[in-house]
Amino acid sequence: MSDLRGATARTVVALREHGAATRADLARRTGLPKSTVSAVAAALVAAGTVREVGEAEPTGPGGRGRPGTLLALDPGRGEVVGVEFGWAHVRARVLDGGHGRGPGAARRMPVAYGARDGLEAAAGLVRDLGERAGAAPLLGVGLALPLGLGPAGAPSEPLTGGPRGMRPGWEALDVPAVLSAELGVPVHADNDANCAARAELLWGVARPYDDLVLLKLHAGVGGAVVLERRVRTGRAGGAGELGHVPVDPRGPLCRCGGRGCLEVYAGVPAVLRALAAWADGPLAPHEVLAAAAAGDPACRRALRDAGEAAGQVAAGLCNALSPQAVVLTGALAGAGELLAGAVREAVARTALPVNADVAVLVGALGPDAGPLGAAAAALAALPA
Amino acid sequence: MSDLRGATARTVVALREHGAATRADLARRTGLPKSTVSAVAAALVAAGTVREVGEAEPTGPGGRGRPGTLLALDPGRGEVVGVEFGWAHVRARVLDGGHGRGPGAARRMPVAYGARDGLEAAAGLVRDLGERAGAAPLLGVGLALPLGLGPAGAPSEPLTGGPRGMRPGWEALDVPAVLSAELGVPVHADNDANCAARAELLWGVARPYDDLVLLKLHAGVGGAVVLERRVRTGRAGGAGELGHVPVDPRGPLCRCGGRGCLEVYAGVPAVLRALAAWADGPLAPHEVLAAAAAGDPACRRALRDAGEAAGQVAAGLCNALSPQAVVLTGALAGAGELLAGAVREAVARTALPVNADVAVLVGALGPDAGPLGAAAAALAALPA
Repeated sequence: MSDLRGATARTVVALREHGAATRADLARRTGLPKSTVSAVAAALVAAGTVREVGEAEPTGPGGRGRPGTLLALDPGRGEVVGVEFGWAHVRARVLDGGHGRGPGAARRMPVAYGARDGLEAAAGLVRDLGERAGAAPLLGVGLALPLGLGPAGAPSEPLTGGPRGMRPGWEALDVPAVLSAELGVPVHADNDANCAARAELLWGVARPYDDLVLLKLHAGVGGAVVLERRVRTGRAGGAGELGHVPVDPRGPLCRCGGRGCLEVYAGVPAVLRALAAWADGPLAPHEVLAAAAAGDPACRRALRDAGEAAGQVAAGLCNALSPQAVVLTGALAGAGELLAGAVREAVARTALPVNADVAVLVGALGPDAGPLGAAAAALAALPA
Repeated sequence: MSDLRGATARTVVALREHGAATRADLARRTGLPKSTVSAVAAALVAAGTVREVGEAEPTGPGGRGRPGTLLALDPGRGEVVGVEFGWAHVRARVLDGGHGRGPGAARRMPVAYGARDGLEAAAGLVRDLGERAGAAPLLGVGLALPLGLGPAGAPSEPLTGGPRGMRPGWEALDVPAVLSAELGVPVHADNDANCAARAELLWGVARPYDDLVLLKLHAGVGGAVVLERRVRTGRAGGAGELGHVPVDPRGPLCRCGGRGCLEVYAGVPAVLRALAAWADGPLAPHEVLAAAAAGDPACRRALRDAGEAAGQVAAGLCNALSPQAVVLTGALAGAGELLAGAVREAVARTALPVNADVAVLVGALGPDAGPLGAAAAALAALPA
């Protein structure tokens, strides 16, 4: 009986983590015998907790393997909301328990908004989404935090506070704890680029891959290292900080105290700075992307230079990890193949031949990757 | 019955891979129930295949947990020999089936020795060791190959052949296959730095760690990435090539076709070149280490500069992976704390604070790490 309860909990956790799955998938992911999974699934379907949601793609040679029925948690039983604290937005997105992607919402924020304002925006977005017609009960909230916005003591903490710390008050306020107390549900926080990687694995370009490196080229530059389909956090939770891998030991200082970090070459500010001498006035990131798409040579070169630096770091990681793919996200990934091509060329020139033919891809989820991944992380982290 | 045979095979494989282990260890490593492991172990002990070799260290809080009896494969049943193809040596070491480290032997070779000469030296060393008193039957041979010495098509292949390919003939001769045919046992080949990492995990400074990065600062510079105690090979077998992570995009060309790779700053040739202007004549690596130990400021600075470059790459990997330790091996690691201190300082200055307090350690096994790790890899790769 207690064994069955354990098997049920493991099955539910696997469905929360991976979304719709066949009985065979669930047996593999839980390590339970197929007969146990079938019994557990029958009970969960009878109780209405789990629903049959269709047939899996045929598997096996030539796609002729017998497809299984896909099971998923009933979306009506509950949902989570993922919230990303971005540079000038707070962005939220609903994910139901069956991994169905629900509606989203965003608030524009002043740059360098403080922890109190961020908290208020997040709580407001979660409440607004919860009041929509057809909302399921809120099970939890996931937060996507960029480096520098974690509470004191978290891996993302050390860059706050100083004059180049991005935003005031974040080191003093434990945003996840306060938000959890306010909303009455568990709140799970993770790094924003790690969230993006999780979302691209579940719904985006990373679906076919087990081992990959993600680079988020945004206001700051972040990253994620995925091995065996798991986002790696390392000893101290500080893995995947690819924006602070050095590119040039004689390069400019970085806000982290390092010198010549990727962030100073491949973040949005670097691209805007490179164009400052040529533009009539300050350019917005979307203007640079639009001008590059229209053929503006300076904008194209600035984006390619950022891609070149990103490619150098990606090449080093290819020689270290020999991943299957390099995935590009963040605002600069809006440049699409222009950026990916520059990264691909730098990798081909810099990595060993055996590692150089890695797939270099632009993420499929755009600005939704962070909130969706944060929601998925929160769903997976719910107590069994 | 077939289940028991499968359980026995899994237990033997686990003992080959990890060496002496308690029944509890074996249950954890094989995923078998403890009762099955106990039954299998009893049968193996009765058959003489496995022996009880002592008591494990007490475990649990305060070291008061009940220690278990350690089981190991009977060393008399068979042994493997690990062979490293070094810069100017071929070096071999015996490992018995119970993970007991046996005797070693080495042959001095001319620099740039060819595949035929390397093969002959390896076969000779294996035969000589097999003829010693008390030798157990030879079960297999493991080869530790530096980048550039693999057979054509292997991950280590692409650097051979050209004027800067290290040694002639290696791309044309499948050394593992030829040696296997000649000796009549399976021959397993692996990268030399990956072998060193395996040995340091089993017997050296890496024993307490699950996640680490190893740098081999030698004639060439190699490396290994270990996560969850497994040496990672990646998609193409080319993981861990840390000597070809770029340090400076404007640096000198590297034999791999890259620019400013770690190898051009932290290999033995780089150190000797840096000292060429100051020395009366060409220095040998051991002379540089001895002079540095005696306080020679130029030799100390040359070694610290190499450590600084290695530390920059290590820092990038700390930000990517947040490992528990960085382990230094190869000839330059003979400088001990002088080198480790320079690496530690560069990591502290370059990595994010959350990742910067990684342990930086000098390998414990010196030039035996490669042959021992190759032997361990060969033992683990034997057919069940």
